[in-house]
Amino acid sequence: MAKFIKGGTIEMSAFPSVKSYAAAVGKKEGEGPLGKHFDYIGEDVSLGTESWEKAESELQRLAFTLALQKGKLAETDVDLIFAGDLLNQCIASGYSVRDYDIPFIGLYGACSTMAQSLAMAAVFIENGLGGNVAAITSSHFCSAERQFRFPVNYGSHRTPTSQWTATAAGCAIVCPTILPESPEECAPKIQAVTFGKVKDYGVKDANNMGAAMSGAAYDAISMHLWNTAKQIDDFDYIVTGDLGAVGSEVLYDLFDKDKISLRRKHKDCGLMLFDLEQQDVHAGGSGCGCAAGVLCGYFLPELARGNIKNILFAATGALMSPTIIQQGESIPGIAHVVHISAT
Amino acid sequence: MAKFIKGGTIEMSAFPSVKSYAAAVGKKEGEGPLGKHFDYIGEDVSLGTESWEKAESELQRLAFTLALQKGKLAETDVDLIFAGDLLNQCIASGYSVRDYDIPFIGLYGACSTMAQSLAMAAVFIENGLGGNVAAITSSHFCSAERQFRFPVNYGSHRTPTSQWTATAAGCAIVCPTILPESPEECAPKIQAVTFGKVKDYGVKDANNMGAAMSGAAYDAISMHLWNTAKQIDDFDYIVTGDLGAVGSEVLYDLFDKDKISLRRKHKDCGLMLFDLEQQDVHAGGSGCGCAAGVLCGYFLPELARGNIKNILFAATGALMSPTIIQQGESIPGIAHVVHISAT
Repeated sequence: MAKFIKGGTIEMSAFPSVKSYAAAVGKKEGEGPLGKHFDYIGEDVSLGTESWEKAESELQRLAFTLALQKGKLAETDVDLIFAGDLLNQCIASGYSVRDYDIPFIGLYGACSTMAQSLAMAAVFIENGLGGNVAAITSSHFCSAERQFRFPVNYGSHRTPTSQWTATAAGCAIVCPTILPESPEECAPKIQAVTFGKVKDYGVKDANNMGAAMSGAAYDAISMHLWNTAKQIDDFDYIVTGDLGAVGSEVLYDLFDKDKISLRRKHKDCGLMLFDLEQQDVHAGGSGCGCAAGVLCGYFLPELARGNIKNILFAATGALMSPTIIQQGESIPGIAHVVHISAT
Repeated sequence: MAKFIKGGTIEMSAFPSVKSYAAAVGKKEGEGPLGKHFDYIGEDVSLGTESWEKAESELQRLAFTLALQKGKLAETDVDLIFAGDLLNQCIASGYSVRDYDIPFIGLYGACSTMAQSLAMAAVFIENGLGGNVAAITSSHFCSAERQFRFPVNYGSHRTPTSQWTATAAGCAIVCPTILPESPEECAPKIQAVTFGKVKDYGVKDANNMGAAMSGAAYDAISMHLWNTAKQIDDFDYIVTGDLGAVGSEVLYDLFDKDKISLRRKHKDCGLMLFDLEQQDVHAGGSGCGCAAGVLCGYFLPELARGNIKNILFAATGALMSPTIIQQGESIPGIAHVVHISAT
C-alpha cells in the first residue's frame, strides 16, 4: 500500500508503470536538438486548424492518439484522463477530451501540469483505481503569447530573461506494474511523488518566470529528497520543467546554501528543447508542453531503454494571470515532483 | 479497499468523513433564502480588498479558516488542499493557498469544481493518503462578469436565460471515518463518487449555460446510478450545482425519456441560493461558488444533523472560454457526482 508522508510525498509500493507515451510538437521544436525524438512534428503552427487554440487541442489529441497506438491500446481501454494546459479555462484540454467517451479530471498547475497529471495518474493506478490512466499536457507559442503577453503580429521585443513557450504536447499512459517484455525494453516505473506547495518569493517580473518558479522547485525537490531519504546522487538527473537559463542559476544558488552541488546533476527541459544560440529563444523554452514534450519524447524512452536508471522529474509552474500582475501582485510558483525509474 | 467501476465510479469502503465545512458568501447571497445558513456574509463585494480577484481569494481564505476553526483543526493538521475556481489561471485559488505551508493540487472543472475537489479529497483519504484533506472552491460575481461577459460598470442588459454568478466560497475538510460524537450530530460520509465525461450537445449560447451543462449532468448522474445499482428513490435529493431554471427543465426532459421523474427529487443550488423573483437573477445562481456555498452552508449541516440521510451531489461545469466562443465553438459541459450520506 502506498505510504503518505507529511509534506505531500507518496511512496508507491505497487510501482505503477508508464506503459506508453508520445510527444507531438511544432515545427520550431522539431528543428531543435531533440527533434529526432518526437513522435509527431507539425508543419506549421496551425496544425491544420482554424485557430491557435484549436491547434493546441489538436496537439493534445495527437499525443493521446499516438500514445494509444504505441501502447496497442484502444480508447475504451483508458479509464480516466488527467489533463491541463495554460489557456484560460483550460480549453485546450476540455475541447480535446470532448471527443472521447472517457471520464476527465481537469487540472491547473500551469507549467507544472505534466508532473501533476503524471503523479495523479500514478496515485490512481497504485490504488487500483483504473486499468489505464492517461496524463496529458500541452502549450502553444501563439495561443500563449496572445493570452499572456502581446499578439504575435505586434512584433513586440522580448526581454533577455523571457522564455519561449513551447508548441508541444505530451501524453503518458500509466497502468499497473508490468514486467519487461524484452531484455532491451521495459516500462518506466513511478517510485514516489511529491505534491508541492505554493511559494511566492516576491518576483514581479512576468518576463522572468524562471526566477519566480525556482524557489518552488527548490522547496519541492528538497522535500521529496528529505521525505524519501534520497540524495541527488541516487538519480542520473534532476530534471526541472522550464526554469531556463536564469531560473536554473537561481536554483543552483538555493541548493548551494545547503551544500548541495545541483549543477552537475541538473537538466532543464527548457534548456534542452531549443538551441539557445541558434533558435533565438532568449532564456530557453517554457510552457507546460515543454516539460511534457521532453519527458514523453526523450526521458521516458531513455528510461525504457535503460540508458537512464532514475530521474527526479520536477515540473514548475507560475500561477499568475495577466490580470493579477496588472494589479501589482508578485508571482507564486509551484512544483510537483515524480521519481521515475527504469526498473 | 475502494472499488473502481468502468465509467469513472469509485465506491468507498472506508467511507471518508466530512469532518468540517464552512461557507463564506457575499452580501446579496446573504440576503437570499439561505442567508441564515452561511458562516460568513460579506458587507460588500470587495471584502476589504483592492480588487474583485483579491476579494475572491479572500472568500476562499475565509471559508478555509472557518472550516479549520469549526473542526478544531490547525493549519498544520491539513495535509493537502484541492482547490479551483473560474478565473483565468485559477488565481483565486493560487493566491489564496500561497499563504499556507500546505501541498496544493489545483483543479479546473469550472462550476463542477466543488464536486471534483470533494471527490478527490475523498479518494485520497479513502486510500490513506493524508489525515485531513481540504476541498475549496469559489466564484465572485464581479470578477466573473468582467472576465466572461462585460465590465459590471457597463450596465449591460442580461438575457432571460442568463444566470447570476454567486459571490461565494465553500470548504469541506475530509478525514478518515469518524464515529458520531453525539446522538444529534455526526460527520457526513462519502459513499461513492463518479468522475464525469465531457459532453457537448452543440449549445452555442454563452448566456444559456444551464442548457449546455444539463446533458453532462444527465450522463454523470445516470452513470453513477447504473454503476452503483441505485435509484433516485435511494436519495432524499439529487442536487445539481447551477443548472438554473432553464437547465433543470432540460434535465427533467432527459430523465423523462428513461421514464425517471427527476423533478420530485431534484434540488438545484442555483435555484436555492437566490429568490428568483425578488433578487433579479433571471434563471438562477451560477458559478462554482454557488454549489460550494450551498453544499457547505446548507446540505452538509443538514446531513450532519440527520435531517437528510442521502444526497447525490452533482455539480456541473461549462468548459468554454470567451476566446473559443468567439471562434464559433459550442460549449462542452462536465459533471462530477458525489454520494454523501448522514451515517
